[in-house]
Amino acid sequence: MARHEADDGGTKGAGEPGRGKGGGAPGGSGGHVFQAPTGTRDFYPAELNRLRYVQDAWRRTSINHGFEEIDGPTFEHLDLYTVKSGDGIVSELFSFERFGGEKTFALRPEFTPTLARMYASRAASLPKPTKWFWMQNCYRAERPQRGRLREFSQWNCDIIGDDSAQADAECIACCVGALEEIGLSPNDVRIRVNNRRYVQNMLRSAGLDETVMDRGLSWLDTYHKLETDAFVKNGQAIGLDSDQAYKISVTLAALAGPNSKWPSDSMLASDAAPGREPIYEPLFKALAAHGLREWCVLDPSIARGLAYYTGMVFEVHEASGAERAIAGGGRYDKLIEMFGGPPTPAVGFGMGDVVLSLVLADKGLMPKDEEVAARLGLNPDALVISNGTPEADGAVAGVVAELRRAGLHARRSYKTTKNIGKLIQDAAKMRARYCVILESAESATVKDMGTQGQEGCGVAELAGRIARR
Amino acid sequence: MARHEADDGGTKGAGEPGRGKGGGAPGGSGGHVFQAPTGTRDFYPAELNRLRYVQDAWRRTSINHGFEEIDGPTFEHLDLYTVKSGDGIVSELFSFERFGGEKTFALRPEFTPTLARMYASRAASLPKPTKWFWMQNCYRAERPQRGRLREFSQWNCDIIGDDSAQADAECIACCVGALEEIGLSPNDVRIRVNNRRYVQNMLRSAGLDETVMDRGLSWLDTYHKLETDAFVKNGQAIGLDSDQAYKISVTLAALAGPNSKWPSDSMLASDAAPGREPIYEPLFKALAAHGLREWCVLDPSIARGLAYYTGMVFEVHEASGAERAIAGGGRYDKLIEMFGGPPTPAVGFGMGDVVLSLVLADKGLMPKDEEVAARLGLNPDALVISNGTPEADGAVAGVVAELRRAGLHARRSYKTTKNIGKLIQDAAKMRARYCVILESAESATVKDMGTQGQEGCGVAELAGRIARR
Repeated sequence: MARHEADDGGTKGAGEPGRGKGGGAPGGSGGHVFQAPTGTRDFYPAELNRLRYVQDAWRRTSINHGFEEIDGPTFEHLDLYTVKSGDGIVSELFSFERFGGEKTFALRPEFTPTLARMYASRAASLPKPTKWFWMQNCYRAERPQRGRLREFSQWNCDIIGDDSAQADAECIACCVGALEEIGLSPNDVRIRVNNRRYVQNMLRSAGLDETVMDRGLSWLDTYHKLETDAFVKNGQAIGLDSDQAYKISVTLAALAGPNSKWPSDSMLASDAAPGREPIYEPLFKALAAHGLREWCVLDPSIARGLAYYTGMVFEVHEASGAERAIAGGGRYDKLIEMFGGPPTPAVGFGMGDVVLSLVLADKGLMPKDEEVAARLGLNPDALVISNGTPEADGAVAGVVAELRRAGLHARRSYKTTKNIGKLIQDAAKMRARYCVILESAESATVKDMGTQGQEGCGVAELAGRIARR
Repeated sequence: MARHEADDGGTKGAGEPGRGKGGGAPGGSGGHVFQAPTGTRDFYPAELNRLRYVQDAWRRTSINHGFEEIDGPTFEHLDLYTVKSGDGIVSELFSFERFGGEKTFALRPEFTPTLARMYASRAASLPKPTKWFWMQNCYRAERPQRGRLREFSQWNCDIIGDDSAQADAECIACCVGALEEIGLSPNDVRIRVNNRRYVQNMLRSAGLDETVMDRGLSWLDTYHKLETDAFVKNGQAIGLDSDQAYKISVTLAALAGPNSKWPSDSMLASDAAPGREPIYEPLFKALAAHGLREWCVLDPSIARGLAYYTGMVFEVHEASGAERAIAGGGRYDKLIEMFGGPPTPAVGFGMGDVVLSLVLADKGLMPKDEEVAARLGLNPDALVISNGTPEADGAVAGVVAELRRAGLHARRSYKTTKNIGKLIQDAAKMRARYCVILESAESATVKDMGTQGQEGCGVAELAGRIARR
């Protein structure tokens, strides 16, 4: 788990020395004691394996859904992030100047600007649609809190160059695919789908000035967090009259949050009525075709914070509404062009590891450490030990090296004990498939740790014997 | 490949618009054109696959050699890097202040300080030895040049808590294991091994003052880069007399660089003579036991730049001496203690992707894109197409979703063509195992792209049919 220093309140406290197993500074050596920066994490093997387990599901799902992986720099020119979001975002960024200093950089708070930059610079030669996934860390200089850290692992999938509801649904299907892969069901999580055009129409009808539409979207996004009075008051602050703001809160109360549901046939029929440009109907039809009816609901309060979304938006939430959003995304049909590319429709989503891990832990869906290690293929093929004779002792290193050279996961014991029974127990503890007991430089006994059967084997045949089974 | 902006000479040039396929800003939209920061890289799918191919070899080798993966923050408190290296290192770091600002951070230039911090804070509960590997990016604010970028992928393996030559050899064996895994042989690369104690003794015998020993090591490290005269002159600059400096250059000329070789039996015997503390003999014995005789040579000019090494040091070089070091490492027995842990011996190495990739490309050892994709398991199981009837058209999305849900890599065609022959060619181009031609919502023809055989199949049986084969 994360070890946070105690600098958040401006106090240069002692941190938490001695906390947890082996914490603090044993040895009393007078060396410096350092801690990880606030909001970042140290991943020891068991913790990293849990992250890798999630990331493996992300990666496998992306590939199975036909996405190809890309990557870009960890930091970008600061203006890549400010051009579309204004300078307000600067306080949430870790920004820095290059030594010598005429350029300012920032650690990426998200990957979409880099993706748009990369797509724009090769647009002419890229396939249509282009389907990319990305999986790395992002950085936000916010105060750390539950579900929100300063460094976290993020997974993105984007379909670029396809403006169809089919592409929207395919994106959501990939997101759901990963949730399913790690054991979540429609009982656990809900995909809340909306469309910015619908929300903008609603705000327009309520008389919101076009110039403050962004503030209107942010206002809607606070619906679930505020009491009705406060929500209505904030609506007045952006220029709505109190009746209109109240009317919107009533509409949302009827449709949004825990009341969200799959839209009725009559609603979809009226949405797609002749003479209207349908907003929801094509998407929900495509979602149904992808088998996603159980997972998705319509939630008109979902607006998403980021400025660049233009149409469909969605968020993944724990079903009861606990925790922050697990994932979120939507359509951003203007961004590639803003970054110097040709006009190009695009849709994508991002999922972070922090909230997802809280939900998995809460629901008991994170497998035990041994199970995680087994699924990641980390269990040894063989533990090689000596029968205690000097000749066998001297042969261990070479035999282990030979097995590894053959592509096998081989370990040796670093213990000084000559108690073969104890060493075989170690093989069981590390879940090795075989324990190889060297009898000399030429011969060994191979014990199958599953069947407990054992038989003799020449050292030269060991790799083949172990690999073959 | 990397796209470098042209800001290095302080000019805010136009970069290289229009360079390469699809470069520049098509569309003339008036959007901003951005480029990746100097010395960083954009990885499109084919380029990223080549990196993943190398990283897969690193990961598999680490696991087979019994190392467990860890990770830490991308940035640390600045003093984690300065405490052991002095303030001189600051100019090579990307450092920044947190918003609000009482703390200064830096992007990691290497992982070892984080590893030492992490080990120190849990030393009491960690196994002895602890074997950790790590694979992420590092950052250096140096001027980019061939083989040296500002962001690069790095692989580390470390054995902590074992001071034996056996552990030194096991580390080097793991490094060699990865080189072998990606096709390099002892003809291509050479492991140049040395020991700081040997070099320090040599400098001491030559009369070097103990207080400038670090500068003496740095001086030796320049041996391969300078002419004899310049080398001797620099030796005088650190306080050696010219005879002594010249004598050292003669010793190195006899033993180092292209003349390096596996040490003779008589040299090892005298190294391990009674009454002496042997420096080389146990290591070279252990290297021989690990089957590494062909790979390793003794090179007394290898001192390594970093201040923290205490004993054995090594570098991996292209055999002819072309390019910078591919990898390097050594023993750092004082570092854990400096970071607040108990006195703990440790040995490890790091390998970056940049020089390694240059060497692989130069030797023609990087497989072709299709081969890389195949080895990474990226080829589709099936391309699903329609026979052109409305019923089959409408079933594609659902069938693809069903196959993906079954854990298969399924793609659909985004083309509007109804020419089945052309679509089947697309399946061949993307190296799909099967092409599924939907005849209706219930039935399909499955074409095996390997054998070219085809047969009918109910849609409900498709996943089983494709998975089974």
